[in-house]
Amino acid sequence: MSDAWIAERMHRIDASGIRKVFDLAATMKDPVNLSIGQPDFPMPEPVRRAFAEAIDANKTGYSQTQGIRPLIDRIQAEFVAKYGHADRQTFITSGTSGGLMLALEVLVNPGDEVICFDPWFVMYKHLVTLCGGTVRRIDTYPDFRPDVEKVRAAITPRTKVIILNSPNNPTGATATREEVRALADLAAERNIALISDEIYRLFCYDESFVSAAEFNPQTIVVDGFSKSHAMTGLRLGWCHGPKAIIDQMAKLQQFTFVCAPTPAQWAGLAALDCDMTAHAAEYRRKRDFMKKELGDLFEIRGGEGAFYLFLKSPWGTATEFVTEAIRKELLIIPGSVFSESDTHFRLSFAAPQKTLERGVEILRHLVRQGGPQACVC
Amino acid sequence: MSDAWIAERMHRIDASGIRKVFDLAATMKDPVNLSIGQPDFPMPEPVRRAFAEAIDANKTGYSQTQGIRPLIDRIQAEFVAKYGHADRQTFITSGTSGGLMLALEVLVNPGDEVICFDPWFVMYKHLVTLCGGTVRRIDTYPDFRPDVEKVRAAITPRTKVIILNSPNNPTGATATREEVRALADLAAERNIALISDEIYRLFCYDESFVSAAEFNPQTIVVDGFSKSHAMTGLRLGWCHGPKAIIDQMAKLQQFTFVCAPTPAQWAGLAALDCDMTAHAAEYRRKRDFMKKELGDLFEIRGGEGAFYLFLKSPWGTATEFVTEAIRKELLIIPGSVFSESDTHFRLSFAAPQKTLERGVEILRHLVRQGGPQACVC
Repeated sequence: MSDAWIAERMHRIDASGIRKVFDLAATMKDPVNLSIGQPDFPMPEPVRRAFAEAIDANKTGYSQTQGIRPLIDRIQAEFVAKYGHADRQTFITSGTSGGLMLALEVLVNPGDEVICFDPWFVMYKHLVTLCGGTVRRIDTYPDFRPDVEKVRAAITPRTKVIILNSPNNPTGATATREEVRALADLAAERNIALISDEIYRLFCYDESFVSAAEFNPQTIVVDGFSKSHAMTGLRLGWCHGPKAIIDQMAKLQQFTFVCAPTPAQWAGLAALDCDMTAHAAEYRRKRDFMKKELGDLFEIRGGEGAFYLFLKSPWGTATEFVTEAIRKELLIIPGSVFSESDTHFRLSFAAPQKTLERGVEILRHLVRQGGPQACVC
Repeated sequence: MSDAWIAERMHRIDASGIRKVFDLAATMKDPVNLSIGQPDFPMPEPVRRAFAEAIDANKTGYSQTQGIRPLIDRIQAEFVAKYGHADRQTFITSGTSGGLMLALEVLVNPGDEVICFDPWFVMYKHLVTLCGGTVRRIDTYPDFRPDVEKVRAAITPRTKVIILNSPNNPTGATATREEVRALADLAAERNIALISDEIYRLFCYDESFVSAAEFNPQTIVVDGFSKSHAMTGLRLGWCHGPKAIIDQMAKLQQFTFVCAPTPAQWAGLAALDCDMTAHAAEYRRKRDFMKKELGDLFEIRGGEGAFYLFLKSPWGTATEFVTEAIRKELLIIPGSVFSESDTHFRLSFAAPQKTLERGVEILRHLVRQGGPQACVC
């Protein structure tokens, strides 16, 4: 009887395929796990120490909804001041996803359209649904470039937001300076809010990171510590953008997340002093290794950043291929989780070298196999 | 220009008066602070230790969206098994407010009505707005009893949810066994979802705590560690209810909060072993002290639980009285924050004895004063 209570919006939100793979992984003894969306290095020691000190010092009560002042000030100084926007403000969120949710709730009216590049981070579509909006999909296959002309053509009077995620999850594609600028300019020209999801900013392997905020002062940036500092479980992110929008987001945070976890905020302050470039260099090496090992089997596009490759299934749909991979104890995610298309799969190289080598071996085997193995019953 | 981007829903959500008082408090040197909605005792030592151990053991990555299995199992065993509902499931939320948000998003369609008792916890109204619903207000002045007949009269075909918060914030009123049962039965009879906000469960001074889940197997319970274990800044709560609803809430958590902070979940496991009854006894003593000291000045109703008294302003509106109190360095919250009426103020006795004594002294002075002090300019 309680089934009948479920609101209509929930019927438009699917359980994530990622979760299904995770649930499967939990039942396997020693899978080759290339499905994980978080770093395989530990949280830095100074962050750990700062965390422990915060607990010792009883910093376990609510913080102000905007976050603790020293952390806001540091981020404002480090990431925001350089863009030179007098109007740009920072506040602290419960993870980058928390910032995303607040930004969309503040911007999107029922019926509004949000332009997203497909493949996309799985959350975008569902958060837009939660706000009563609809996603306007920009297909980026096969090269995963954010084509500004396609965006221009997709704009309607209901277009309220464009979301750019560079480096991208799941493709690793990283927008060039020209691409970012073109999109930033278009958003400004058409008075559309631009959300820039910069959570993979640290992991740029071929070119320097470029933020749309450099070109468009109204850009709303969501960012955080999760991926760069291996702090995914701490739920700590930040957001900066035009004061009018940030004020509304902070107001809404008060009635939803309340505040980002307080001890994590003190740990975040220490994280800003940690040099993570060696980890980024290590992931570049892993990326190079995977491209070298898989380049003869798969046509590799994207992969200039983040820690993912998004590869075309050599046979069958992606779901069929991934099902067979999981049968061989290789965990990867079917592209249908991130896309309207079920042609590719996501592979994370945020894993130990040994795991990458085992993964390559299974993938080689699967390609040679040429199709799903017949069931011997 | 970005002002024009703000979605319509945000214009129906006011900045909280609590936040204004907090911002004021931050500017004062040594205020008599009776405005705080969190315990003044520290987080228990075993919780602190478990937290530090989780960090040491690298438990800093994502947990499963439902929460860590040992914590789910403990809560299921401790709080749920006793109701004997085969269908009742538990999951771990980012604070009790996180559970509330998810429950309302899962239940409330645009245009649906949610019945709330006024005065209410400030978040209810705004979360209902976020879902596109409207609050149907049940006036509980002057005695703050949740009158089931008033609820029955307020039910319409659009009524989807009733929210019961006992012990109540801000009044401290605690529903009797009969009141809880009547409401639980009514909800069952009319097939309306009943959300029971049990965050102040530990703090019952005159009668034992009674949950609506005892009488209505479809009750959705939101609860957490924040108030009972002084863990407000850790953002850790839980929710239990019918499987169909909990499954939807967990699905939505995956796209919003992702998971409750992981190290806090391990700390929560330790918290369940801490006996907090001495703290509850201490707060009973503080409650008794405040009632004794203020009983000749104010007619005290409610206050059987939580750590608040909700008192009628002796003169002027509550906002006028609170403004004068703040001028005298006493921080309290005007009732308009929690209510459509601006007649009462909330006083928290979760404060050191010395602070309570100073607060009583200022309140006595304010009553004698009989009105706002003339400005001597």
